[in-house]
Amino acid sequence: MSLITLTSDYGYTDYRVAAIKGRILSLNPEARIVDISHEIQAYNLQQTAYIVSSAYHFFPKGSIHIISVDSFFHKDRKCIIYKADDHYFLAADNGVLSLIFADIQPEAVYEITYNTRFDDVVNFTTLDVFAPAAVHLQNGGLPEVIGRKFLTPKELSLPKAGSTDNLIFGEVLYIDNFGNIISNISKSYFEENMKGYDGFTIKFRNLALSRVYKSYTDIVTDWNLESESHGKPVAVFNSAGLLELTIYKGNITNGAKTLFGLKVGERIYVEFYRE
Amino acid sequence: MSLITLTSDYGYTDYRVAAIKGRILSLNPEARIVDISHEIQAYNLQQTAYIVSSAYHFFPKGSIHIISVDSFFHKDRKCIIYKADDHYFLAADNGVLSLIFADIQPEAVYEITYNTRFDDVVNFTTLDVFAPAAVHLQNGGLPEVIGRKFLTPKELSLPKAGSTDNLIFGEVLYIDNFGNIISNISKSYFEENMKGYDGFTIKFRNLALSRVYKSYTDIVTDWNLESESHGKPVAVFNSAGLLELTIYKGNITNGAKTLFGLKVGERIYVEFYRE
Amino acid sequence: MSLITLTSDYGYTDYRVAAIKGRILSLNPEARIVDISHEIQAYNLQQTAYIVSSAYHFFPKGSIHIISVDSFFHKDRKCIIYKADDHYFLAADNGVLSLIFADIQPEAVYEITYNTRFDDVVNFTTLDVFAPAAVHLQNGGLPEVIGRKFLTPKELSLPKAGSTDNLIFGEVLYIDNFGNIISNISKSYFEENMKGYDGFTIKFRNLALSRVYKSYTDIVTDWNLESESHGKPVAVFNSAGLLELTIYKGNITNGAKTLFGLKVGERIYVEFYRE
Repeated sequence: MSLITLTSDYGYTDYRVAAIKGRILSLNPEARIVDISHEIQAYNLQQTAYIVSSAYHFFPKGSIHIISVDSFFHKDRKCIIYKADDHYFLAADNGVLSLIFADIQPEAVYEITYNTRFDDVVNFTTLDVFAPAAVHLQNGGLPEVIGRKFLTPKELSLPKAGSTDNLIFGEVLYIDNFGNIISNISKSYFEENMKGYDGFTIKFRNLALSRVYKSYTDIVTDWNLESESHGKPVAVFNSAGLLELTIYKGNITNGAKTLFGLKVGERIYVEFYRE
Repeated sequence: MSLITLTSDYGYTDYRVAAIKGRILSLNPEARIVDISHEIQAYNLQQTAYIVSSAYHFFPKGSIHIISVDSFFHKDRKCIIYKADDHYFLAADNGVLSLIFADIQPEAVYEITYNTRFDDVVNFTTLDVFAPAAVHLQNGGLPEVIGRKFLTPKELSLPKAGSTDNLIFGEVLYIDNFGNIISNISKSYFEENMKGYDGFTIKFRNLALSRVYKSYTDIVTDWNLESESHGKPVAVFNSAGLLELTIYKGNITNGAKTLFGLKVGERIYVEFYRE
Repeated sequence: MSLITLTSDYGYTDYRVAAIKGRILSLNPEARIVDISHEIQAYNLQQTAYIVSSAYHFFPKGSIHIISVDSFFHKDRKCIIYKADDHYFLAADNGVLSLIFADIQPEAVYEITYNTRFDDVVNFTTLDVFAPAAVHLQNGGLPEVIGRKFLTPKELSLPKAGSTDNLIFGEVLYIDNFGNIISNISKSYFEENMKGYDGFTIKFRNLALSRVYKSYTDIVTDWNLESESHGKPVAVFNSAGLLELTIYKGNITNGAKTLFGLKVGERIYVEFYRE
């Protein structure tokens, strides 16, 4: 039986997350439910997209991912089933899935018709629409039975890195729990712009880095002297292929977030040069 | 097999929640355990009651809810099994269940005798009393086998809304993760007091609202202009039937908690008038 | 089938914990996974050891505990399987297990060879090494198949309490979610030093306590007057056998952490006297 994952901005204090699990388990006592995150910032679709896109592909094909961020029910906004990369996603038609699958075409998108035609039925979208829809899919039910094809889901786009002459200008997309700074500069875009140049400098605030390491620990050449690297800035391409800035074991003293002082949306530049 | 839910003020950092799950799974490797919340404020029975009463009924009938708030073991305070609305609740006899079931009579209340007669046996109530009792019930065991009828559980009461002439005076019961303000003014009490009047004004701090919406999104008349409603104050009756004040998508800029400035216990008035 | 537990400093916001669960469930759809804690302070091995050692023994024998703290992959640092007390622990060879089993010899320690010989394979140690190793063990696989005996795991030690004449000097090891102060003074060390004396005074900051209670609630002699004890300082030996200082129901007004003002590493003294 497929897994159901949950992502929301509900936090772990209130009753909402438990209510969703209770509803799903009432509909299917054998359901297996895994939390992705419930600590998304309120209504933050960009953060939601980063976290869900980083996590979903570790789950088995066929998993069903409920995204309860900006999902207030309104008769003029659809609830959708979005099938892509052999996973199902249930969300409001708020564009979050176009952020997750910026470069991938969905296999199919459906408008959920179950429970959504009558305004009075839906009080809490996830409980009243996504939960029964997820259980339907989990039991092997077809999307067509509870919805109909929908060809124009809302599109959003992340701020894209740009370039001019010898310069890439990107920005901070996300700052994680360790204070790691994730930018919107992809490895492929970086390498494409690097062609014909001999070196580069990554610039942000008043800092400059001239190397991208293969991994965080690559900065450590001798593991016996590992502690000498604590607090050093490191740039890597992370597992999502994005340029990430970090302070090696930064949180021991002061995290990257503090040290760099960067915020989501701030500029990061890469300057290329010839020797 | 019945579900076991956990609610506590233990937080997610320490070992306690994991210890409880480990103990339950040692007693019954097939047990299914769901967290309601572990971020209750220390010893806060009013918050516990609000969260558990909002969540429990989404779980299947027969579920077993362990409430580990203010549950220190003391030989002079009983551990109880409280059966109501076809659910089991395990808690210390601290009155929290009378807050959850203010208007419902329990089907039965039992004092747990298992493990509780000898002061030295119980070190940690949930591990030593509630966990084995829950597994006993989960396996279909009768409460009578591990306890005996108890007729005088402790009674507490929430601050009740009152009224005089054309005025209801209630107070803030709870403020959730989004900054939504939940009051103790119920829909039925509101409607009863409304009889014979033409309109009303909800007053708190220096704000006044003259309408209760059917849902948060009812404030949005045209979904294409939805963002124009961000930051507007909205009053609704929530799914628990209580008057709730919120800032529509308030957390995007500043949450209801901040904007209203209200705290738990503060006054909220409803003034009725004739035209 | 054995349980897998997870402990990390990844927090609950980011994608990492979900990615680990997704990977495990992809390898074994029937796996049962329980969180111990994901709110360890970044790279804090002492806190990790306290929490894991307090929690693991509540789980069934044979459980597999993944410890993802200070586990960055580097070719010069091994990933280990540590078998002790009939439980399996998977961690980087950073010494954390010598803190958990300070007084217990492991049954066996293995270096994991699966996936770790080629630097390029491991991007994220828990996903690429610990998760498949845990599933191998969970399926009844032998450690020898994915590793080889390792005789010199890294050793760390907690700061030990010492004594001179009539004085024990210990320190604060850990402060929990309730503000309870856990010291490194064990009950056995206390009792050994107590021999030949009539009384003692526990001293820290400008406070002094002359009694160790059997439990928190032992300070309450009459449960009807329980609220009179709120805010009183109490010393107990906790379930790990360590001297713990607390404010009885301190968080109602101000937690022990605040009131005592103590920090991890600060001194706690026990002075013994004859009458």
